[in-house]
Amino acid sequence: MEKLEMLYKGKAKKMYATDDPDVLWVEYMNQATAGNGAKKAQIEGKANLNNHITSVIFDLLKARGVESHFIKRLSDTEQLVKKMDMYPLEIIMRNTAAGSFAKRYGVEEGTPLKKPILEFCLKSDDLGDPFINDDGIVALGLASEEELAEISRIARAVNEGLKDIFSKIDVQLVDFKIEEGKTSDGTILLADEITPDTCRLWDLKDKSGKIEHLDKDLFRRDLGNIIPAYEEIYGRLVKLAEAEGIERAE
Amino acid sequence: MEKLEMLYKGKAKKMYATDDPDVLWVEYMNQATAGNGAKKAQIEGKANLNNHITSVIFDLLKARGVESHFIKRLSDTEQLVKKMDMYPLEIIMRNTAAGSFAKRYGVEEGTPLKKPILEFCLKSDDLGDPFINDDGIVALGLASEEELAEISRIARAVNEGLKDIFSKIDVQLVDFKIEEGKTSDGTILLADEITPDTCRLWDLKDKSGKIEHLDKDLFRRDLGNIIPAYEEIYGRLVKLAEAEGIERAE
Ligand SMILES: Nc1ncnc2c1ncn2[C@@H]1O[C@H](COP(=O)(O)OP(=O)(O)O)[C@@H](O)[C@H]1O
Ligand SMILES: Nc1ncnc2c1ncn2[C@@H]1O[C@H](COP(=O)(O)OP(=O)(O)O)[C@@H](O)[C@H]1O
Ligand SMILES: [Mg+2]
Ligand SMILES: [Mg+2]
Repeated sequence: MEKLEMLYKGKAKKMYATDDPDVLWVEYMNQATAGNGAKKAQIEGKANLNNHITSVIFDLLKARGVESHFIKRLSDTEQLVKKMDMYPLEIIMRNTAAGSFAKRYGVEEGTPLKKPILEFCLKSDDLGDPFINDDGIVALGLASEEELAEISRIARAVNEGLKDIFSKIDVQLVDFKIEEGKTSDGTILLADEITPDTCRLWDLKDKSGKIEHLDKDLFRRDLGNIIPAYEEIYGRLVKLAEAEGIERAE
Repeated sequence: MEKLEMLYKGKAKKMYATDDPDVLWVEYMNQATAGNGAKKAQIEGKANLNNHITSVIFDLLKARGVESHFIKRLSDTEQLVKKMDMYPLEIIMRNTAAGSFAKRYGVEEGTPLKKPILEFCLKSDDLGDPFINDDGIVALGLASEEELAEISRIARAVNEGLKDIFSKIDVQLVDFKIEEGKTSDGTILLADEITPDTCRLWDLKDKSGKIEHLDKDLFRRDLGNIIPAYEEIYGRLVKLAEAEGIERAE
């Protein structure tokens, strides 16, 4: 596989074309951002960790019947993925009230929810990623009714898979954001990344009674260095994958 | 029927108890507010017009099979309604992009929508009436899954009824906000008011090419006096009710 020209550079990854039109070469960056890019930093080691974490999570999800765009890890900071036509949606699943949800509805962070909540935001830095509902998505032509049903089914399946994975490594899966897209043959798949940048992960091993963040909230809220937390998550995930005898794509 | 103590005073109406525990005495006020109460004025004649307009609309909807809390109009500014246990929801239906929707998604006001959009906001002045989706409503316990299905069914039926009514009087029903509640016997019903305060109504008789607002946007956006516009809406609605031979509850 040949790495060709860079197609686009996001806030966390660079995406390159390859000699296969259906395959992208992803390069993770050390850049961390928060608040829609308002806060920005270079954090040595983040690219490496996120590339490893998302790879093992995609492998663990695959073993649970949830397919994704992930093909294989190439190096410490690079991987190959299926090239997708992305839906301009941030797909958020919440199991516990936290972050913008807690603030928006005046609910204390950590409040359990009566059911998992699926939320969508229109992915648009210019508009500030506004909240959008199912009717809005269809009415603005972002996805058809049928596509949206499949996007939602996948999001809920990812949540079930991740809840299982994280409960086995003593981590509370509070919420997460995914993206989905459509392959050239029209299959809708989980894409982008699943890392502590895109999940809220609270350590269940910590018995202090305080929330022990193992995710990007450490950076967002200036609570400490993310690297040891991301290493902790990666270490536990690798042990789980080994224990389960998961086949690794690398 | 006896008017007893005032139970609560909102931004547009005072609600009084009566000697029947299932009946409320509503008094419309001249107060106009916008931007969650940030802008406020007393507008002579508004109470009278809105009390008349909502009454004739509830009668016209009833003739179209859509029941509401409305019992009868008592005077120029008063009416009787069924007392409801209200859902803390602003229930918004949109047929054309306008207002907060147009702004939120960067869509030009007046853009037709591929399908009517049903949106909910949590009714809370303190929180600024935040947007909420179906999962959020159920997860926060604001309504059960079954109640929400019925609330939504009613909202869409109200939209169909209102679209029919307004198209017959040469008015474009752009969007509107309703509220619903539950009677003491558990029936979910349309409640509150349907007036030019709670609808966006554009005059289709106007051929200037500009939007001719016949609603509260005149006040919100300082575009002119609302009273002639509200009188125009009321006049056309009464003519329609007469033409249809609708029975009036007054
Ligand atoms: N499989 C894929 N095919 C095409 N584009 C993808 C795929 N997975 C992720 N992307 C896109 O790659 C871009 C770069 O990712 P990222 O740096 O996280 O961007 P952002 O700043 O939007 O978060 C994003 O626009 C994302 O939607
Ligand atoms: N049938 C009803 N039973 C009980 N409460 C009602 C009924 N219809 C409307 N209400 C409530 O009456 C209150 C007063 O109305 P309004 O002045 O419009 O208040 P607001 O400032 O919340 O818009 C609102 O809280 C509304 O939800
Ligand atoms: Mg991203
Ligand atoms: Mg009101």
